[in-house]
Amino acid sequence: MRETKRGSFTLPGESGYEELTLTLADRWGADVIRDSDGTALSDEITEAGYGIYSTICLIRDHNEWASTHTEHLQQTFLMTEPRVAFTGQLRIPLMEDFYEDQFQINETSDSMKYWQVYDRTVNEEMPHDSWSYHSETKEVEINNVLPFHEYTVSFLAYRIWEEISMYNHVTNHWEKEHLMPLDPRHEETRNYLYQWLKTWCEEHPTTTVVRFTSLFYNFVWMWGSSDRKRNLFSDWGSYDFTVSPRALMEFEKEYGYALTAEDFIHQGKFHVTHMPPEKQQLDYMDFVNKFVVEFGKELVELVHTYHKKAYVFYDDSWIGLEPYGSRFKEFGFDGLIKCVFSGYEARLCAGALVDTHELRLHPYLFPVGLGGAPTFCEGGDPVRDAKEYWIRVRRALLREKIDRIGLGGYLHLVEDYPDFCSYMEKVADEFRSLKSFHEDGEVYCLPIRVAVLHSWGKLRSWTLSGHFHETFMHDLIHINEALSGLPVTVDFINFDDIRQDGLKNIDVVINAGAAGTAWSGGEAWSDAGIVEALSGFVSQGGVFLGVNEPSAIEGYHTFLRMSHVLGLDKDTGARVCHGRYDFIKEEITGLIPDGAKIKEGTNLYLTGLDTRVLAAKDKQPLITYHAFGTGCGIFLSSFKVTNENTRLLLNLMLFGKKMELEQKYLTDNAQTECAWYPNSRKLVVINNSDSVQSTRIKTDDGMTEIRLEPYDTTVIEL
Amino acid sequence: MRETKRGSFTLPGESGYEELTLTLADRWGADVIRDSDGTALSDEITEAGYGIYSTICLIRDHNEWASTHTEHLQQTFLMTEPRVAFTGQLRIPLMEDFYEDQFQINETSDSMKYWQVYDRTVNEEMPHDSWSYHSETKEVEINNVLPFHEYTVSFLAYRIWEEISMYNHVTNHWEKEHLMPLDPRHEETRNYLYQWLKTWCEEHPTTTVVRFTSLFYNFVWMWGSSDRKRNLFSDWGSYDFTVSPRALMEFEKEYGYALTAEDFIHQGKFHVTHMPPEKQQLDYMDFVNKFVVEFGKELVELVHTYHKKAYVFYDDSWIGLEPYGSRFKEFGFDGLIKCVFSGYEARLCAGALVDTHELRLHPYLFPVGLGGAPTFCEGGDPVRDAKEYWIRVRRALLREKIDRIGLGGYLHLVEDYPDFCSYMEKVADEFRSLKSFHEDGEVYCLPIRVAVLHSWGKLRSWTLSGHFHETFMHDLIHINEALSGLPVTVDFINFDDIRQDGLKNIDVVINAGAAGTAWSGGEAWSDAGIVEALSGFVSQGGVFLGVNEPSAIEGYHTFLRMSHVLGLDKDTGARVCHGRYDFIKEEITGLIPDGAKIKEGTNLYLTGLDTRVLAAKDKQPLITYHAFGTGCGIFLSSFKVTNENTRLLLNLMLFGKKMELEQKYLTDNAQTECAWYPNSRKLVVINNSDSVQSTRIKTDDGMTEIRLEPYDTTVIEL
Repeated sequence: MRETKRGSFTLPGESGYEELTLTLADRWGADVIRDSDGTALSDEITEAGYGIYSTICLIRDHNEWASTHTEHLQQTFLMTEPRVAFTGQLRIPLMEDFYEDQFQINETSDSMKYWQVYDRTVNEEMPHDSWSYHSETKEVEINNVLPFHEYTVSFLAYRIWEEISMYNHVTNHWEKEHLMPLDPRHEETRNYLYQWLKTWCEEHPTTTVVRFTSLFYNFVWMWGSSDRKRNLFSDWGSYDFTVSPRALMEFEKEYGYALTAEDFIHQGKFHVTHMPPEKQQLDYMDFVNKFVVEFGKELVELVHTYHKKAYVFYDDSWIGLEPYGSRFKEFGFDGLIKCVFSGYEARLCAGALVDTHELRLHPYLFPVGLGGAPTFCEGGDPVRDAKEYWIRVRRALLREKIDRIGLGGYLHLVEDYPDFCSYMEKVADEFRSLKSFHEDGEVYCLPIRVAVLHSWGKLRSWTLSGHFHETFMHDLIHINEALSGLPVTVDFINFDDIRQDGLKNIDVVINAGAAGTAWSGGEAWSDAGIVEALSGFVSQGGVFLGVNEPSAIEGYHTFLRMSHVLGLDKDTGARVCHGRYDFIKEEITGLIPDGAKIKEGTNLYLTGLDTRVLAAKDKQPLITYHAFGTGCGIFLSSFKVTNENTRLLLNLMLFGKKMELEQKYLTDNAQTECAWYPNSRKLVVINNSDSVQSTRIKTDDGMTEIRLEPYDTTVIEL
Repeated sequence: MRETKRGSFTLPGESGYEELTLTLADRWGADVIRDSDGTALSDEITEAGYGIYSTICLIRDHNEWASTHTEHLQQTFLMTEPRVAFTGQLRIPLMEDFYEDQFQINETSDSMKYWQVYDRTVNEEMPHDSWSYHSETKEVEINNVLPFHEYTVSFLAYRIWEEISMYNHVTNHWEKEHLMPLDPRHEETRNYLYQWLKTWCEEHPTTTVVRFTSLFYNFVWMWGSSDRKRNLFSDWGSYDFTVSPRALMEFEKEYGYALTAEDFIHQGKFHVTHMPPEKQQLDYMDFVNKFVVEFGKELVELVHTYHKKAYVFYDDSWIGLEPYGSRFKEFGFDGLIKCVFSGYEARLCAGALVDTHELRLHPYLFPVGLGGAPTFCEGGDPVRDAKEYWIRVRRALLREKIDRIGLGGYLHLVEDYPDFCSYMEKVADEFRSLKSFHEDGEVYCLPIRVAVLHSWGKLRSWTLSGHFHETFMHDLIHINEALSGLPVTVDFINFDDIRQDGLKNIDVVINAGAAGTAWSGGEAWSDAGIVEALSGFVSQGGVFLGVNEPSAIEGYHTFLRMSHVLGLDKDTGARVCHGRYDFIKEEITGLIPDGAKIKEGTNLYLTGLDTRVLAAKDKQPLITYHAFGTGCGIFLSSFKVTNENTRLLLNLMLFGKKMELEQKYLTDNAQTECAWYPNSRKLVVINNSDSVQSTRIKTDDGMTEIRLEPYDTTVIEL
């Protein structure tokens, strides 16, 4: 499907490889050339008539300023590993557990008033007069400890090595200065950074787009002292790296109450995005978001005065950006760039309220990829990688328009991979075609509006916290990934939305996750109003689709609060001696695609005779259906995204809504999908597998049959 | 090892099969002949010079009295299945969920004042004026219900069919009158039963032992109306079948507070032995136990006045008997008879404070056995069954003396199974030999005293609640079964025992179970004093051996409260983004027997660098060791009893106590075990497998080597 259109493609250029840069820019139809971390663009490139993106990470690479303003370095709360007391006194060395190149104790009095010593055995704070800090040994001495109790010290530490830089440095064995992260919370530094950007804009007239990578604060990424546990804690949605005595002071002034170290430390668990957020946490996130938007907006306006556009990269130092937060439009960004491994990330990007949505595809042009696997080096197969990433992302692109795609890294690495260069040519063309179809009119969508219900709602639309490979253990990321390419409308709602009539116009509510997590909802399920609203929704024809431990909370007569709708519950121990209804699995033609696989749950039991078991293993139901009013509850014991399971999810929604499984503009082969653009009368059919596939598609003009090569895309004009 | 000794064997005789009875009595060396449920003994048998056991189930088979004293029938609280309200009124038919042959609503005013209607969605009781009972339709009408809330009615019901009789009746398709259970809580009925027993004693002069089967109250066994869920709830340790308005009134008078239906119903979960008991539950159990002991003692005294002995069967209507309770000796029973499938049941019997400990072996002489599998009928193999049960029980008999064994059922069934008759001859002889070795002096035991720690402690020594096949899903029954034949001393303690210095002289504390259960301990772990005491115990050389989720409770910095001792914890969601220590599995020669298998846990992580991983699968530790003071914590992710795992358990205790794995009087083959009786200088070696085994045993006189046939026992004189 070679198309002659050009544009919408961002090429990573590389100084010293001007010919390669310009040749590939031509072949891939690039309209923009960018630099990357570790590469520069020569004048020959910047003056070749392309748009120029320049990447900027504002808060690092100012070591001179940083070394004279160490109190303006970014900080975080740390907690020492719990230590057992044996005698009446305990000395805890603060830095023993931590990577000394990343952290430095903040010993200032402003900092120390936030320090806390806890007896974790009873989970009580020790009075301040029971402990003292010895700066010379970097130890806290605790007196009158109780034998065998465990004690921790929570303290503030400066971060002396910006984490992304640190990671790249360590991974690539760089021999460079460690870049320190500055905190713009301090006015003097804020002004310095503003001036620095102003100068930068003046000195870079050829740059057409300033590409912020990203804003001020990195997601949390704490490293440890032991090479047996280098990663202590990382969470892509956590705000701990924004904290400082100044931030805490300003928070207290604004919100009328003070936060403590424990509000961040949380018994050493920190605040994991996968767990339901607490009020203090949400307040603090809101506080930081406000600050990031305020200063971010100033920077965007500055960039605009130089007639450059401002794009922002949604990864790394993205904390406070919140593309799905209420303030995002205030930034005034012209574009949002998202690095994508998966379809849900493409949808995440597409749904943000910004003019230009751009994807940075994988593989990144680095010798090694994720987890150190070879890409552009011996043993690597970048074409295979590109195909596998593309078939994950492509199906999302059928559903929502993305404006641009691009690559990143060292361009010279592709020289030895001509197949990769050809494949990218095809991808770029395919992308431009799909974009044009969207521009011609809306894609056909089934009349099913899905609301994914969890503790975060809209703020964590599509993503959980980070990439797929970091969150694969949660059913919901699999659900989101499946949904990203299905012909249904998708919303993300939280429990407050339900309280505020948020179920209007919704057809299917999905609640998917383990008990107690943000994805199942935890404590929110103690609110009977939520149960009432969802029951009412279902009784009027809605579908409640629960996965794993939906609506789970201890303390009630059932563990799953929606058990009366699902017709199923889970025993957590107190019902081990209770009888279980026998059941016979029902076969519903076409509902469960060949090859669909659902992992067994444990201790599940039917709550009544009228629950229909659609799939089962041994005596455990895997999929159940239960009518409730004119709607129903559907239960899945787990969900992993595969081509077959994705179709199963769609089928269950159709079945729940009492719609035919054989719909127009659906393929009859789960390895394939299609999208119908009525205005341009284009039917796009894709093969999501690595083997040849045939499929039939019912259209308004009858049945269409098609054969697709592995990974391929075909466009049919009807 | 044919011995000429006789006695210690109870034979089930059968009228009409006198010759068979007396022949087998001779071959098996019986000294006593018994009747069974469904058989009688003729004069020819009772006068043949044998002791005669007569089985009596006192509270049933008085239908004439029962039908004129229906208010003296036994009762229970029932709760209707939760029903969803859609409009402002809800009618709940009380009996719809229940087996109508078992239950009948108690509509008396004494009963109705205990009835409760609950809104289970908010878990609040509805005021009494919001509902009414309609006797004609057997429905409760609830007004002003909230849409989509679920409601339940808790009410008192008479039990109109004694449950063991009901089960036998239904299973064997009997066409007989349904026997009703009388409640001796009522003085008039108590006197009637007393008089009945008096008369019975007078009319049965040949009976030497009255064998109570058992006392007054059955374990809880509720049947449902649906043949898809006939068993609603059964728990061998639950006291719900003892309740009545009179009992509740007397309880209130004695304990100074009133119990409600909800104290029994517990949201419809009832009180499962596998969950930690609550105060009201323990008070009520104590109250019932006191009553059962009082009346039971009168009956035993009555039997004694007729110069008969009184034995009690520890199963069926055993509630209130409590052989490990503080009042058990007060009964004055001469013997305790336990039906045994497993070693732990033999130990349960052996440990009770009573003169005569008797085991009723399996298979029962019935055509079908457990779960309907054939025994003495086509397709059955009673010799194989007998061997398999015997090797489970035999190893416990090596450790503790049992006084008698016997069988039950229809003797004529063995006629067609001459092999079975021969095998029982061998078993009876073997048993008598083992008994004689104990009589000659104590068996040699390793200097290891184990305390199994759980919520019930001594009261539920050895058993959890019922037989092995009913409790197999709990790690602890596997631990108990393994311990039942190991050469170590075993105590059972609860958390109060720890508070009262109960760790003195203990070497190993085992805590084994899932979080929240009685076997792990649940809420008890919130007491820092428990953690302190156990930590102190370990620091002084003790071993804390945790299995599955030992010491688990939410709310603290670790899920396992003993994680500082175990060097390991389990993430329940909040640490999903935290790093984990890498580890390399350590090989310790001889520690893990070939064939030992431990099931993988989930979300386990090491809490420090010094935790030693002794077995692992993928990245999950299966067995860990962590030094703490001079003792250690040992963790097992699960435990299933097999010959190999049993030896593993012993090895871990030796390893934890820093003792040599190669001890004297231990076999070097995990399929075999041995016991050394120093006084009689007998070394008994057993083969616990179905294949030929060889083993070497280190003794004070050097190494002994022996070959054993499948299932066999060999006695070596040293």
